[in-house]
This record gives sequence, C-alpha cells and structure tokens, in this order.
Amino acid sequence: MRVSELFTKTSKNIPAGEVAKNAQLLIRAGFISKVMSGVYIYTPLGLRVLEKIKQIVREEMNMVGGQELIMSSLQKKETWAITKRWDDDVVDMWFKSRLKDSTEVGFAWSHEEAIIEMLKQYLESYKDLPISVYQFQTKFRNELRSKSGIMRGREFIMKDMYSCSLDKEHHDKLYDNVIEAYNRVFDRLGIGDDTYITFAAGGAFTQFSHEFQTICDAGEDTIYLHRAKNIAINGEVMDDENLAKLGINRDELEPVKTAEVGNIFNFGTKKSEDTDFSFTNIDGKKQYVYFGSYGIGITRVMGVIVEKFSDEKGIIWPESIAPFKVYLVRIGENAATKADELYKELTSRGIEVLYDDRDVHAGQKFADSELIGLPVRVTVSDRLLEQNQYEVTDRKNGAKNLLTHEQLLDKLG
Amino acid sequence: MRVSELFTKTSKNIPAGEVAKNAQLLIRAGFISKVMSGVYIYTPLGLRVLEKIKQIVREEMNMVGGQELIMSSLQKKETWAITKRWDDDVVDMWFKSRLKDSTEVGFAWSHEEAIIEMLKQYLESYKDLPISVYQFQTKFRNELRSKSGIMRGREFIMKDMYSCSLDKEHHDKLYDNVIEAYNRVFDRLGIGDDTYITFAAGGAFTQFSHEFQTICDAGEDTIYLHRAKNIAINGEVMDDENLAKLGINRDELEPVKTAEVGNIFNFGTKKSEDTDFSFTNIDGKKQYVYFGSYGIGITRVMGVIVEKFSDEKGIIWPESIAPFKVYLVRIGENAATKADELYKELTSRGIEVLYDDRDVHAGQKFADSELIGLPVRVTVSDRLLEQNQYEVTDRKNGAKNLLTHEQLLDKLG
Repeated sequence: MRVSELFTKTSKNIPAGEVAKNAQLLIRAGFISKVMSGVYIYTPLGLRVLEKIKQIVREEMNMVGGQELIMSSLQKKETWAITKRWDDDVVDMWFKSRLKDSTEVGFAWSHEEAIIEMLKQYLESYKDLPISVYQFQTKFRNELRSKSGIMRGREFIMKDMYSCSLDKEHHDKLYDNVIEAYNRVFDRLGIGDDTYITFAAGGAFTQFSHEFQTICDAGEDTIYLHRAKNIAINGEVMDDENLAKLGINRDELEPVKTAEVGNIFNFGTKKSEDTDFSFTNIDGKKQYVYFGSYGIGITRVMGVIVEKFSDEKGIIWPESIAPFKVYLVRIGENAATKADELYKELTSRGIEVLYDDRDVHAGQKFADSELIGLPVRVTVSDRLLEQNQYEVTDRKNGAKNLLTHEQLLDKLG
Repeated sequence: MRVSELFTKTSKNIPAGEVAKNAQLLIRAGFISKVMSGVYIYTPLGLRVLEKIKQIVREEMNMVGGQELIMSSLQKKETWAITKRWDDDVVDMWFKSRLKDSTEVGFAWSHEEAIIEMLKQYLESYKDLPISVYQFQTKFRNELRSKSGIMRGREFIMKDMYSCSLDKEHHDKLYDNVIEAYNRVFDRLGIGDDTYITFAAGGAFTQFSHEFQTICDAGEDTIYLHRAKNIAINGEVMDDENLAKLGINRDELEPVKTAEVGNIFNFGTKKSEDTDFSFTNIDGKKQYVYFGSYGIGITRVMGVIVEKFSDEKGIIWPESIAPFKVYLVRIGENAATKADELYKELTSRGIEVLYDDRDVHAGQKFADSELIGLPVRVTVSDRLLEQNQYEVTDRKNGAKNLLTHEQLLDKLG
C-alpha cells in the first residue's frame, strides 16, 4: 500500500474528551476514528490489525474443535426472560428498541441465552454432542461512562465460544484445552508473559470463573499475584476462605493493575438446568448438557496492546498483528525508482509493505513511521544508494543497520 | 469437515410463519436459524457461503481501488439531523434507543451521513483525493413486515462503498469502473446472465440511479426489459418522458419480476453541497467533492441465489460460493477406510470436502447431499470399490459418472 493512496493519514487531532492513551495514539496514527464516547470506526489500518487478531483467535478456536458461526444482534424478550436477564434491574446495559407493532427488542450485549435457545433446536440426542461453536460479534453495552478508548466500548467486538459436552470428563478436558488455546493466543499476540489466568467470581457451577488478566497501567482491574506459585486472584474473591483453599498467604500477594482480556466460565450443568437444555442419552434418558462459555475481547485486546507497546513517538506493534511488516521510506530524487522497484519486489514476495511515496520531508516520514509503529523501517535514500545500501531500523529498540539488497531480502524473509 | 461433527444438521423443522422459499430451504439444510421475522443466525455452513460471497465482492472492490474499513452501528442524532434523515417521518425504519443520560442514539440502517462526517475529518486538500472506502456492515432496518427470508431482513449484511473524486471526469470513470466490477461480481456469483442494470429513481445529481436487478420470481420488484437493446427500467421512472429520453417504445418492454441485488448512486456534488463536504483545490479554492455510493446486499444476494438455484430436492449452489465443493458419501463397512483415505487426500490437496461419515442409511445421505446442494457428490461404496470405481454425481444436472481414482483427482483438480 502506498501512503499517498492510503486512507487515512496521521493527525494531531484528538477528539475532545479523549483521555485514554490507546485511543489517542490510534486516532493520531489513523487506525480509528471516534463516533461518540465508546464507539469507534476502524479505518483500513485499524481493520487490518483487527482482522489479524481475529485470525489468530480463529486458528486457535478451530484447533480445539470450535466451529465459526454468526448470531444476530437483535434479541427477543422471551429469550432472555427465562433467566430474568431481560430485566433492566438485573442487566443494566441493554440497548432496547421496538418493532413497528411495539414488540420490544434488544441489541445483544451477550449471546449466552440466545445461543442456548438456538442450540436446543439442534442438539437432541447424545449423537449430536459434543459441539463447540464460536463467533466474532459486535456487542452493544449501554455503559454509563466510556473513557477507556477501545478498551471499554459501547460497541465492540468479542469472540465468544460456547461448548456443549455429554459428560463432565469431556467438558473438563475441553475447558483445559481452551485454557491452553487462550495461552497460545496471548503468546502469539505478544502479551503472553504479562497475562495471568486469574481466579474470579461468577462461577455458577464451580467455585471460580477464570479471567485472563494482562498487566496494564490503564487497566480497570487489580489482581493479586503470587509470582512464585504463578497464581493470580481477583480482589472480589480474595477472602480468607478462598486464600486457604488455594494454599496462599495474603502477605505473599502483590497487587498489580490489569485489564481483563478474556473470561471463561465452567457452567457445568447449572446453566442447562436453568434453561432446560438437555439431550437424550444412550439409555434414552434425559440429561443436562455440560456447558462452557469462553470470551476474548478482540477490540479490547487491541487497546491493551497499544497501551503496553508504545513510547513517546507512537505505537510499537508486535509483528503478528502489525498492519504491515515494513514501512518503506524513500528520500531524494534518484531514490524514487529504486524504492518503487523494492516496493514491488517485496510485495511480490508476500511481504506486507506500507510505502511512503509522498513528497514530504524525511522528518515527517520518519515521524509517521514511528507513530504508526510497523516493526521494520527500510530507508532508500540517494546517499545510501551510492553505497548500495539500505538503512533498516527496528521500531522496538531503534537499532539501525546498513544492509545490502541481498541482506535485506534475507532479513525480511 | 465430517458431517458427524458438523453443527448443524438437516431438519424438517421450518419455523412457523416462514413462507419464503429461500429461508425454508436454508433452514431445512442447516445454513440459517431463525431468531425472529427478518433476523437470522448464520450457522457454520451459512457463514461459509456468506464469507465466500464477501470475498468475491472484496476482490472486485479492491480492484477498483476500494479500501476496506468498518464503521459503527451506533449513530448520533447530529450526524443525521443535517440532512433531516434522523426524523422518523422522513426515514421510517430507524431502530432508536437512548444512552444512560437520555441522549438518543440510532442503529445504522445506512452509513451515508456517517461516512461523510468521518471523511470530512481526513479529506481537506486535493492531495487527499481520490479516495474510495467500503465495508461489510450489519444494517438494522425496522421493517413493518419481513416475510422474504434473508432477502429482506431487519438485520442484514450489506457491502457499501463510497467514492470521493476531485472532478467529474475521475468520478464518472470510477462510476463506470464500479458498474463493470459489479458485473464481474454477479458473473462470479452465477447470476450475471439474469442480472440487469436498471434505470431507477433516486438520482440526486443525475437523472437516474442505477439498480442491479436479478430476475427472480420471489423478487419484490418489477422491471421493464428491452431485450434487444439490453435496457431495463424500473416501473417508478417509466413515464413517457423518460422512455423518450431512452429512445424506447412502451410496447417493446417486457415486465419481469426481479430482486434488487445492488444499487449505485452518482451524487455528483449534490450530497457534498448538502453536507458541506469540500476540499481545497490546487488553486487554494473551496470545491465540493464528487461523491458516489455503491451497495450490494450480501445476505440478500445469498437469498436470491437460493431462490433461483434450487429444485424439489434442495439447493444447487454455484461452485464459487458453495460451502464445500464435494459431498463425500461412504456406504458399507469396507468403504469406511477407503473413504477416510480419500477424504484426507482431497483435503490435503486443498479441495473442500464435506464427508458424510455417519452411520445412517444411504438414502438419508443422498437426500441430505441434495438438500445441502454441493456441486459434486462422490460416493465410495463396497460394491463400487470391487471395480476400483467412485460414483460422481453432478448436483446441477444429476449426471452420474463412474471414475477411477486417477480420473476423480483429475476432475476435482
């Protein structure tokens, strides 16, 4: 992609009231555009990042047997009345509206009740199980405030997977497999080392649910970390009884600010009993489905990555989700032809290149390359060409190297 | 994919009140699941079709220079008040709701005003033009009735592209390029021969807008076709004045039932003037942007294809968008190993196979294969294996051929 043709461009404009670092940087670098508090447009650069995050998650969900589908946003009252979660006093974040005949409809903030209603139509016999399905879906949550940029949106994208198992053994094994898949996801996203599986409240069947919490100064949560035992606990469940169960002393725990990037629930058969979600087992008897629910905040994790990987110059994308791998800069008159050729050559080799072909000062190109934050900058200049060299700059550590054409191709793979 | 593991399964269940053939077939074959009138879930099979349609459209939009992004569903009142299209008396299909502080918000039924508001922030100078951006977006329309299955949803997916040009020349050329891109899209989707570019009302700047209308008994429109001149006219603009302009006699026109699969608007500078969408030209003067808007109903076109390509046994997918290419059936005890091997071999060659490995009667497998409607069925049976042969059945014309292993690989490419 040529910068001269790319929509959007970098900017100094930050919408009024935008206090979150992730949103400020993403807006200035041209990845997102603000619609209202907690609602953002993802521009071509931003969408490329989102799609790469989704693809990593997709591959790992497929690895544990997940099948992708897409639910609806519009929800019927009856679907949620069963668990009382239609009630605004129970769930205070619904956006609701009405059909022309005055029938109330809601816009999904979650899909648990909806997916169970749907699954019930297809899963009748033990032969129909196990099944795991997942989606990448826009969720709408009527948040009172929304000041954390894309880390807490009123409209955001989530991956939610749901598993249905015949028995506890399969269910628990799958649950553990998903934990491993989540660890792989966060490793691939570059935040594995700072992401902890955390004991949290909300376990309906088991004592705890599990959150995946990433150390992040801008996070809204605090977890209590036992580094030696590699155990993390959410404050809401940190009482003496639970600490005793986990064999941990309170004074060994270190509080850290975190952002929740994933959350998984082992419902056992509790949710199925509440919603009468059952199947006929091999003996012809009614049995409740073992049910699990597994979320990852796709847009949130993008925000967390920006919060963690940035400096005073801009964003520093992990290579796995950078919108392009290379920021190609050309400086000077003679360099134009060579840079054009290199752009075509790298692109034809499948290397993703953002080519700054604009007629602007070198300083502006360098500043934009640092703000946008691609892993590698390659500079083609009149001066360097005299020595048959390219300057290669690592965005992460700023290291500069002069490489020949062959060395460059070698490095970029 | 193995049918034994696939979510969903075929069914005789059609939700009460589902009168549209497309929805009946797609529900029975397990591609969609009904949430409420005009609102559907796309199951793994259905999502595969949708994604293939999107990919074809994506490739053609990229070919004309479109850059993909994703807007928001949540809309501010102010964005739409400028053109008075917030008003329910002007646009009667808004779903609206309120933030916690009572601020009204809407769920986008279109994105024209929103995209112009966003584009204005980035397009200031002639150097920033031309730009074309597009998205695949869920739209919400509060339809009074919704009886046409996925052909007219309250929640549906649309591809909408918007172009911004410096001058009339570039604008008109791009408009023509998009028409050609649309023709390629509908060709690749298998409905090119039955899809007509049609003069319609709604041209703000030009006399007409252009609809792409596909001949379809279940369509809600009627167009008037001049087969000799290959001209089509929408009834709403078919008056004597317009017929004279187009050089057509009324009695040469043939009325045909159609469904609108695309619609494009050449706004010229009209929309930009209405919304004060301008740039600074090379002489430093203010100039209005030439604006175009180009839609394709992604879920609708899927519905139209099912309406057109089906028989009493089920759906007949065009190969370009079939969820899988091959339906592999195994019959008999000994065939199991051979069928497993063939499944792995075809899959490793990149051929998409849905493998019916279930322990059910051959008749049910054949019936399901015809209902689901993949282009090619390959049968592996004990009887045929004795002759080292596979039976290959064409879903479209029912033609059966006995092929050797080598001939089969050759045919499936």
